[in-house]
Amino acid sequence: MSKDQLFVIKVGGGVIEDEEKLQSLLESFAAIPGKKILVHGGGRLATDIGDKLGYQAKIIEGRRITDNETIDIVSMVFAGLVNKKVVSRLQALSCNALGVTGADGDLIRSGKRPVKFGIDFGWVGDPRKVNAELLAQWLEGALVPVIAPLTHDGRGHILNTNADTVANVVATAMAEKYETHLIYAFELKGVMKDIDDPSTLIHNLNKRKYQDLKTRGRIFQGMIPKLDNAFQAIAEGVSSVRIMHYAVINELSNEEYNEFTLIQ
Amino acid sequence: MSKDQLFVIKVGGGVIEDEEKLQSLLESFAAIPGKKILVHGGGRLATDIGDKLGYQAKIIEGRRITDNETIDIVSMVFAGLVNKKVVSRLQALSCNALGVTGADGDLIRSGKRPVKFGIDFGWVGDPRKVNAELLAQWLEGALVPVIAPLTHDGRGHILNTNADTVANVVATAMAEKYETHLIYAFELKGVMKDIDDPSTLIHNLNKRKYQDLKTRGRIFQGMIPKLDNAFQAIAEGVSSVRIMHYAVINELSNEEYNEFTLIQ
Repeated sequence: MSKDQLFVIKVGGGVIEDEEKLQSLLESFAAIPGKKILVHGGGRLATDIGDKLGYQAKIIEGRRITDNETIDIVSMVFAGLVNKKVVSRLQALSCNALGVTGADGDLIRSGKRPVKFGIDFGWVGDPRKVNAELLAQWLEGALVPVIAPLTHDGRGHILNTNADTVANVVATAMAEKYETHLIYAFELKGVMKDIDDPSTLIHNLNKRKYQDLKTRGRIFQGMIPKLDNAFQAIAEGVSSVRIMHYAVINELSNEEYNEFTLIQ
Repeated sequence: MSKDQLFVIKVGGGVIEDEEKLQSLLESFAAIPGKKILVHGGGRLATDIGDKLGYQAKIIEGRRITDNETIDIVSMVFAGLVNKKVVSRLQALSCNALGVTGADGDLIRSGKRPVKFGIDFGWVGDPRKVNAELLAQWLEGALVPVIAPLTHDGRGHILNTNADTVANVVATAMAEKYETHLIYAFELKGVMKDIDDPSTLIHNLNKRKYQDLKTRGRIFQGMIPKLDNAFQAIAEGVSSVRIMHYAVINELSNEEYNEFTLIQ
């Protein structure tokens, strides 16, 4: 028997922090039939709220440190403000959303990132274990998990976790049970050779072609971690990764639609 | 066949906002065997964060109005900061907590409170419908729901909802399936005739005795809404209501322990 399809959609901060874009994303997400999971970032909202609270972000060697104040702020903004706004709007679109973090139901347990070269990044987590069984139960019960980019260490601490990483580990963990497709939804059509020219959209990307483009410096620097993650997910059993515009993710089940970058 | 027992525990803001009291409550809660649900308030934490954000609370005729800014603040503090702190700490106590609001899984749908005598209370919700089926599924799967005092209107809005009311409607909705006991956990031993004299603890309270004490002015004014709610819950099928100290709720299944007010 063939496996059911599952779409794991990760949406970035740029869409989350703009009311109109967020609504467009949510309408498009709600229109996707079948099993789906949304993973969201928080974008600059946490920084904005931190600023208003008079909090001074700690930055060491260009990297933000998640200290006690920061973990409280991202808990408030990601798990409270953003997650519940997304859930209540999806409910209004008849999509039975369930908003969670990795602490809820022991969904994603992480290790606190170790001190490296004398730098302690603070309350930052690298995922170790996903409760795929519980996510599957929810999906079978027609619930739609909406995951904020926070995990926990099993010792009573919430850990700040990269949203792309959360989407990746969730998709990878679900790939055994479902034919899982991972989607990075953002503000462009996909990966383009020339970021200012939509006609240079790369429709298909395999590992060999990617290595070649990367070597020749033809891949936009900012896309490289995302693409490395994508090929990692494929290597670990995810069926495909799509990089596409947030407003058209409901085209996922339309086989004729091809305005995105498909990674296989 | 007799029904399974379920304990619905409501804990007030005074315990939530104090780190030591919170930890004591959580240890006591984690030690309760069997099926249980925790409903928490947020206390002054939302006001404190609002103050730090430079927000001026709107108060009309002594009543706080939940305007656009306030609903964002309570979403952040109740569903983000407090709920996730509680969940991650319970996880560390081997209690598989799942933190939710009434919007998640369409758990508690409310009506936005209508304008009354010209006063619009804003984003405040009065519960209409509890998804008891979903809560029961979670309980049967050994999950422990931790509910923040927020509900939704089904039209995309989060609504601020009194935590006592949330505990009451949840207990009432679950009473059909479980032998449900509602517990108000707070900083006193129970209802006392003289608030400064613990020996005046009222061990048992029925409706007739309550009416009598109320008429004679022997009930502390602040307890009256809680007690009215308690008798309402009993009238709607809840098996018992206990008003007790937050640090001893693990005594719930000890039949010899009687340092609380039992309402039947």
